[in-house]
Amino acid sequence: MLLKTHHCGNLSAANIGDTVVLNGWVAVRRDLGGVLFIDLRDRSGIVQVVFNPTFSGDALAIADKARTEYVLAVKGKVVQRDEATVNPNLATGDIEVQVHEIEILNAAKTPPFFIEDGVEIDEQLRLKYRYLDLRRPEMQKTLMLRSKAAKVFRDFLDENGFLEVETPILTKSTPEGARDYLVPSRVHPGEFFALPQSPQIYKQLLMVSGLERYYQIARCFRDEDLRADRQPEFTQVDIETSFLSRDQLLDMMEELAVRVFKETIGVDIQRPFQRLTYADAMGKYGSDKPDLRFGLELVDVSDLVANSGVQVFANVTKKGGQVKALNAKGCGTWSRKEIDDLLPFAARYGAKGLAWIQVKDGEWKGPIVKFFSEEEIAALKERLGAEDGDLLLFSADTKKVVADVLGNLRLKIGRDLGLIDDSVFKFAWVVDFPLLGYDEEAKRYVAEHHPFTRPVEEDLAYFDTDPGQIRAQAYDLVLNGYEVGGGSMRIFKRDVQEKMFQALGFSREEAHEKFGFLLDAFEYGTPPHGGIAFGFDRLIMLLAGRTNLRETIAFPKTASATDLLMNAPSEVDSKQLEDLSIKLAVKEVAAKA
Amino acid sequence: MLLKTHHCGNLSAANIGDTVVLNGWVAVRRDLGGVLFIDLRDRSGIVQVVFNPTFSGDALAIADKARTEYVLAVKGKVVQRDEATVNPNLATGDIEVQVHEIEILNAAKTPPFFIEDGVEIDEQLRLKYRYLDLRRPEMQKTLMLRSKAAKVFRDFLDENGFLEVETPILTKSTPEGARDYLVPSRVHPGEFFALPQSPQIYKQLLMVSGLERYYQIARCFRDEDLRADRQPEFTQVDIETSFLSRDQLLDMMEELAVRVFKETIGVDIQRPFQRLTYADAMGKYGSDKPDLRFGLELVDVSDLVANSGVQVFANVTKKGGQVKALNAKGCGTWSRKEIDDLLPFAARYGAKGLAWIQVKDGEWKGPIVKFFSEEEIAALKERLGAEDGDLLLFSADTKKVVADVLGNLRLKIGRDLGLIDDSVFKFAWVVDFPLLGYDEEAKRYVAEHHPFTRPVEEDLAYFDTDPGQIRAQAYDLVLNGYEVGGGSMRIFKRDVQEKMFQALGFSREEAHEKFGFLLDAFEYGTPPHGGIAFGFDRLIMLLAGRTNLRETIAFPKTASATDLLMNAPSEVDSKQLEDLSIKLAVKEVAAKA
Repeated sequence: MLLKTHHCGNLSAANIGDTVVLNGWVAVRRDLGGVLFIDLRDRSGIVQVVFNPTFSGDALAIADKARTEYVLAVKGKVVQRDEATVNPNLATGDIEVQVHEIEILNAAKTPPFFIEDGVEIDEQLRLKYRYLDLRRPEMQKTLMLRSKAAKVFRDFLDENGFLEVETPILTKSTPEGARDYLVPSRVHPGEFFALPQSPQIYKQLLMVSGLERYYQIARCFRDEDLRADRQPEFTQVDIETSFLSRDQLLDMMEELAVRVFKETIGVDIQRPFQRLTYADAMGKYGSDKPDLRFGLELVDVSDLVANSGVQVFANVTKKGGQVKALNAKGCGTWSRKEIDDLLPFAARYGAKGLAWIQVKDGEWKGPIVKFFSEEEIAALKERLGAEDGDLLLFSADTKKVVADVLGNLRLKIGRDLGLIDDSVFKFAWVVDFPLLGYDEEAKRYVAEHHPFTRPVEEDLAYFDTDPGQIRAQAYDLVLNGYEVGGGSMRIFKRDVQEKMFQALGFSREEAHEKFGFLLDAFEYGTPPHGGIAFGFDRLIMLLAGRTNLRETIAFPKTASATDLLMNAPSEVDSKQLEDLSIKLAVKEVAAKA
Repeated sequence: MLLKTHHCGNLSAANIGDTVVLNGWVAVRRDLGGVLFIDLRDRSGIVQVVFNPTFSGDALAIADKARTEYVLAVKGKVVQRDEATVNPNLATGDIEVQVHEIEILNAAKTPPFFIEDGVEIDEQLRLKYRYLDLRRPEMQKTLMLRSKAAKVFRDFLDENGFLEVETPILTKSTPEGARDYLVPSRVHPGEFFALPQSPQIYKQLLMVSGLERYYQIARCFRDEDLRADRQPEFTQVDIETSFLSRDQLLDMMEELAVRVFKETIGVDIQRPFQRLTYADAMGKYGSDKPDLRFGLELVDVSDLVANSGVQVFANVTKKGGQVKALNAKGCGTWSRKEIDDLLPFAARYGAKGLAWIQVKDGEWKGPIVKFFSEEEIAALKERLGAEDGDLLLFSADTKKVVADVLGNLRLKIGRDLGLIDDSVFKFAWVVDFPLLGYDEEAKRYVAEHHPFTRPVEEDLAYFDTDPGQIRAQAYDLVLNGYEVGGGSMRIFKRDVQEKMFQALGFSREEAHEKFGFLLDAFEYGTPPHGGIAFGFDRLIMLLAGRTNLRETIAFPKTASATDLLMNAPSEVDSKQLEDLSIKLAVKEVAAKA
């Protein structure tokens, strides 16, 4: 067999005169009057190889049998192309290879779709033939980017003294988490392993072990109903440290993120990253993962409109709700229809209505204007910086609904108005998340992050008075409207942990039942520790400029958690189930679905 | 909090005069007449810190409360120790830290065992308190070694153009493999995912995708009955390449192995590695993973004894069996009892008896000597190089039993005689494995490696005449009697694959049912490819000089596949089972077991 000396895409004018051997796939084949041109493709790119009676000899007749996606080995001389035939669209477009020896390494059936970028192919078909889909240059580039990013993460963490430690995949069902994937045990009938939702408990145990700095690019599993940006198995860069302050950790992680962006896609990110409290993020952007590439901030006008003639504004403020506004600059010229079209969008996020004012030729127009006094208008004008050409949008509801409605309107208008520069990467830390949220259904507090998140020191007193007020030493890393990382400093003192469990309504027995081994471990000298996990799939998605997680994973599952290539999940032998001491309990209807 | 400026174990005379902050655990605490000495331990090692009324002030009283395994932050000055108190057993033994500030970061209960190396602790207890067991310096060193080894693997593979690609953990049940772990699907009632026994099929599909060089440090799962060197989940460095010859691949992998040994434990390994055929390995060492650190080779004497008066030798050779001998140099002086004691050992490997001859003072002694002619003795003497002081051990049986018996006797005697130098690492490739083995029970051939292993080119004709004769392009990497890696070149031509399936007795339909998606993929232009997988856990075990895989894994499972720390597997809520459309089918007896 002719073994490659060069990669197709790496040949250049520097190779002119060289005899090279290439191995690759037939991307395109053209026969021009007895001369055969083949675009040969490998992982590195494409180069044109030429067969011609003059220099190819027997190789021409053999090459003539090759069809699209055949695998070839060719040997030939690199030559400059005639000026007229130079292809500026191809990296190797100023040269070609005159072949004098060929081997057809393998034949190929006609593929079900074209192996090239920028074609519209049904995703189901792409996933079924993933091995062909992955031949497309843009998919290969994404996988190379992913591999490179993993390398940069590892190199940085290694340089900073982090040890890579593997934690079990066959582990125990997580209390208080999402739904687990279960694995029946053959050796212990009636018992199950669970696949980990994250290595959280193991990484904290490693800190108890004194390992001090741990990382792992870890597979995690959640049996949740899927969305476009969820997969049943996903990858996170999982990190934990001891003896670092929150700010030391965040600093180091910023450095890491900057390095990843620089070394994968060559983009310089400025440090330090902006830090926003959760309260500010929600207040100004209606989101705990704000897209900071543009302004269009939400403005609280509750105080200005509480006594206005707009009945709904007055009512909402009386009931402890909020009235906030968004000044959509330059939208003052929108037609009534354009404005009305925002309503169904807003309604999706819970809006019952959407009040608006247009400022045109110095005049305030819109159905609610007449209910405002001149003073109120002047105050609104000042606070919102309203001027000619502006559109003011109002939402009045509970704090949560207002944030959802205006936060999403902000994103929509920002996109529609072209305020978002797609070449910009805007990182920020969101900090000071609430420690606890009140679950109205369960009538108790639940941990917003997890039950081991450390409270902010000066809020500890609220445990006895108003637990909902306690801020957590938790942080999210936000990029362009996505959460790309998140973590917290952990509780390491027994008395704080007990207060936390009390606040969650767990008796000592319940706490022990759920978290026994970790609480035991914490008794034996736990160092101050904290960590973070980066959503690796999502980060790659953003680095690659994609919008779908499946594009970043070699063999992803569909939204119904199916592997279309392998046809998994699938039925198994009854013998296998018997070995595992389980039986099917499939309802007829479900089975048919 | 006092945040560390230095690691305990890294302090040296170069730091004398420096003020340092250390964070660590109390390893030992000694009170000598009002002066308190604490050995403070972190990941890097141990240093002595001293509290004394002269320079410690209030810190002495605080330190006095600290007990073993308390977590401390101390600030102090590095000073030279008095010559009389220098501790040559400690890396930092010529200095100590005079503490003037201390914080007790956390208290600790008395641990259930001493946190130090070289103590005998029940393994069950160690696994239950793994977070404490991992505090022991030798465990931390092993985890550091493991992390480092992973780094060296990755760096080398990255430099050589391998892409790290993650393949699914939730995948499909493997036909023709070991027993799978199954995962019930909630979304598809009655269907199951399987955890991968290896990424074999995915890595071959990645070659079909044109990715050319793939690697992954991959978690694999086998639900088999466990032995000391098996774990239900284990890690392999999984590698696959296209367009390389077998020898190119083996060369590169040798380079990789050499680099791993050099950069982790500083040992130089000579290249090229010895290459042995499977036939030679079995013939000379009775094993396909021979320990080559010593000789003591098996010698075939069938032809010499076929017509001797030793009835069993004559019978065995007539029935197509074998008679082989081992010359245990220097054991000619063993007592009859010492020789007889070998029999139960040999019997474990199927020996029905064990014939022997001692050469003492020029005379041949032993029960069988009298049945040999003088010519036969002369011939045996020459072939076995027998001389005064030797013990000749004979096994006569089927080829397989002879290999097992003498192969294991060779290892035992080699160890007993001290022929094995534990500081030596002797790598070898075992090549030319048989492609097919005959399964007497199923009355058909089965793949020795897997059904995609490429046959040796010149053996292809045997498919039609004697498939058992076909050698595979498969190879194992052997180190000191352990298989540390194995792989093969793969079939990539359709006609060869069909011959293989025929030989295995699969109809085209059966083959398609079992391997459909892979066979489909192979139709679309499959490159020549092959690969290897290194057993990462076992390699770390050998690098660390351990004999138990569990010592190399942070959170291993016991021989009954239990996680004693987490107490997994465990029972789950009936609601969880209902969601998954399964029921328990636990037999009473099994449940009680």
